[in-house]
Amino acid sequence: MACGGQEEKAGVVVVESKEWYMAAYAPDGIPSSKHLKLRTVAVLLSADSIPEGHVIIETLLISIDPYLRSRMTGRDEGLYFPQFNLNEVIAAFGIGRVVRSRDGNYSDGEIVIIPFCPVSEYCVMPSQALVRKIDPNDGVPLTDHLSLLGIPGFAAWVGIEVLGEAKPGSNVFISAAAGGVGMYAGQLAKLKGCRVIGSAGSDEKVKLVKEEFGYDDAFNYKKETDLDAALARYFPNGIDLYFDNVGGKMFEAVLNRVNKYARIPVCGMISDYNKVWTDREGVRNLLNMVGKEVKVQGYLVGSYLERFDDFIKEMVSYAKQGRISSKHKFYHGIDQFLESFESLFAGSSVGKVVLQVK
Amino acid sequence: MACGGQEEKAGVVVVESKEWYMAAYAPDGIPSSKHLKLRTVAVLLSADSIPEGHVIIETLLISIDPYLRSRMTGRDEGLYFPQFNLNEVIAAFGIGRVVRSRDGNYSDGEIVIIPFCPVSEYCVMPSQALVRKIDPNDGVPLTDHLSLLGIPGFAAWVGIEVLGEAKPGSNVFISAAAGGVGMYAGQLAKLKGCRVIGSAGSDEKVKLVKEEFGYDDAFNYKKETDLDAALARYFPNGIDLYFDNVGGKMFEAVLNRVNKYARIPVCGMISDYNKVWTDREGVRNLLNMVGKEVKVQGYLVGSYLERFDDFIKEMVSYAKQGRISSKHKFYHGIDQFLESFESLFAGSSVGKVVLQVK
Repeated sequence: MACGGQEEKAGVVVVESKEWYMAAYAPDGIPSSKHLKLRTVAVLLSADSIPEGHVIIETLLISIDPYLRSRMTGRDEGLYFPQFNLNEVIAAFGIGRVVRSRDGNYSDGEIVIIPFCPVSEYCVMPSQALVRKIDPNDGVPLTDHLSLLGIPGFAAWVGIEVLGEAKPGSNVFISAAAGGVGMYAGQLAKLKGCRVIGSAGSDEKVKLVKEEFGYDDAFNYKKETDLDAALARYFPNGIDLYFDNVGGKMFEAVLNRVNKYARIPVCGMISDYNKVWTDREGVRNLLNMVGKEVKVQGYLVGSYLERFDDFIKEMVSYAKQGRISSKHKFYHGIDQFLESFESLFAGSSVGKVVLQVK
Repeated sequence: MACGGQEEKAGVVVVESKEWYMAAYAPDGIPSSKHLKLRTVAVLLSADSIPEGHVIIETLLISIDPYLRSRMTGRDEGLYFPQFNLNEVIAAFGIGRVVRSRDGNYSDGEIVIIPFCPVSEYCVMPSQALVRKIDPNDGVPLTDHLSLLGIPGFAAWVGIEVLGEAKPGSNVFISAAAGGVGMYAGQLAKLKGCRVIGSAGSDEKVKLVKEEFGYDDAFNYKKETDLDAALARYFPNGIDLYFDNVGGKMFEAVLNRVNKYARIPVCGMISDYNKVWTDREGVRNLLNMVGKEVKVQGYLVGSYLERFDDFIKEMVSYAKQGRISSKHKFYHGIDQFLESFESLFAGSSVGKVVLQVK
C-alpha cells in the first residue's frame, strides 16, 4: 500500500512530513514566522518501526484555537497547559487517520480524535493519547467533531447551561459572538428561550450572527466609542448572563450593566492573550460584583467531562432537528497553519477556524 | 418616668436628640465634616404622638461598617443600598431600647435589633423595621449581637463556609484580617482545619491576628514592597481560598498565586470605596481565572438569610466553648460617629468598630 505518494519497498514507505515547531517564544504580540517555523522530517510508515501500543497517524483536521497562544509565551504561569518546548513540534486538538498500528484496538483506516495532536502531516502516537474513534457512519460531518461536538461546542454548553444557568427570558450577552465558541453559546442561549445580544469585530460578523445564528441583535464593537452606552442601548433591562470570550474593556462595561445575581462564565479573554499581564488594561469596577452579587467563574472544559455525554446527546438532537448551525473557516494544507492561527487575533476569520491538513 | 434627664409633665417628656445627616455627597475621598453633620432635634417621648404600629427607640449601639461609604457618593450605581438623601438622617445597623410603644408586640424597655437604625440618639420607627428582640438573659454580651452574631459574623460565615467551601488543609488568605469581618473569617477557617494567613495594615494588627485570633501567620502589607513576593513566601503551596475584603492590588497579587479551583468570595473591596471607579487601579490578570478555574463570587448577607439559624447555632456553640473571640473598638457618644467612621479608612481601628451611643 502506498502512502504519501511514495513507493513502497518490502512493505515500508518513507514519507515526508511537514511539521510546525516552536522556534522562539513570543512573550507578547501575535506570534509570527519568527516564532513558529515549518520543517520537513521523514517518517517511516512501518508498524515494525514503532513501539508496542503505538499508532502512526495521518493528520486530517486541526482545530485552531486562541488558547494555543498561552503555550507560546515562554512564561509558565500555570495557565491552561504548559509551554511548548523549544524546537519541538507544537500540538493542537485534531482528527487523524490510523495508517499503521501496533495496538490491537486500532486498525488501519480508523478515524480518531487526538486532543494533543502534533501540528504535522504524520505522527507516531501512543494509543492512550487518542480519546475515541469516530464512526464514519454517524451522519455527522467530520469537521463537526472539531466544532459542534468538540471543544468549542462543549465550552459553549458548559458556559451557557451549567455555569450560566440560562433561563427563559434571561438577558444574555455574548462577546466574540461569531467565533468558534461564541456562535454556539448564542444559539444555545436562544434555544433556552433567552434574549441574546452579541458583539463582534466586523459588520460581516454582525450580519452572520443575526441572520444565521438567530441572535436577537448584535453590534460591531469597533464602531462603538462608548461601550457603556452601547450596552445600555442593547440591554435596557440589564445583563443576566455574560458569556465572556474577550475580557478587558468589554468585561468592565458589562460589570457596569449587570443585574442582580448575574453569572459570568469566563471561557477565555482574547484581548489579553498577546500582552504580558502587567501591560494589560485592568478592570477597575470589580466592586460592582459585590452589590450585584455577581458570580464570575473561569473554566476549562476538561473539568466537566462527566457531563460530556449529556452534551453530545443534546447537541446531536439539536443538529438533527436543524436547530443549530455551524460556520467554519477552512485553511488548506499544513503550510497554512500560521496564517490560520494569526487570523484568530486579526479578527479576520468568521466561525470556527479549521486547518484541513489532508 | 424621666428620660434624657428632662422633666416630665403630664406623662410627656421632650428630649433633645442629636442626629447625623447627609449635608453633601462625597464622590471620592474619605467623607468629612463637610459631608456629614450633626444637628439636634426635639423628640416628644409620648406614645400618643406616634402612629399605631410604631415605637420610639433610644439608640444604644451602632455598627460602623465600610459599606456605609457606598451610600454617600451621590452616584446611584445600584451598589448595596440606595444613596442617603441629602439633609436626611443617615442609618446603620443598630441596637436600641423601646421607650414608648404603640405596638402590642413591643413593650417599654425591650431591646431590639434595627437593620437601618437612624444614627441618632432617639428615633421613631415602624415596628416592622425591627428584626428581632434580644433576650437580655441569653448570656451573650449586647455588643456581640452586632459583631459575632451580627452582620460581620454572618458575612464571615457565608464567605468561609458557604461560598469558600473551606476544607481541612485548605490554604486560606484573609485580607483586612483584623477587621470586623476578617477576624471572624480567619477564626472560622482555623476551626475548619485550614492553614490561615492574614494581612493587615499595622504591626499591632498583625500581632493581634496571630496571638488572639490564632492565624498561622500574618503580615503587614504596608511593609511589603512586592505583594507577589509576599504571597509566594506565605503560600509556598498556593492559595485555595481568598476571603477578599480589599480588592485592588491585593486581589491582583492573589490571582497570581491561586491554586486550581480556588474560591474568592468577595465581601467588600475597601481599597475601592473612596475612589470613583474610573480612578481605581484595575485588576490586570483576570485571565488567570480561566486556567486556574477560579470562582469569584460577590455577595451580600441578605441573600443567605435562610442559613441564618444554622449560623447562629454554630457561632453560639463556638462562643460557649471559648473557641472564637471578638475584638471591638468602641467610640463613645453620638458625637463620635464621624471619627469612628473615618477610622475604618484610616486603618486606625482594630476589630469591629462600634459606636456606643448610650
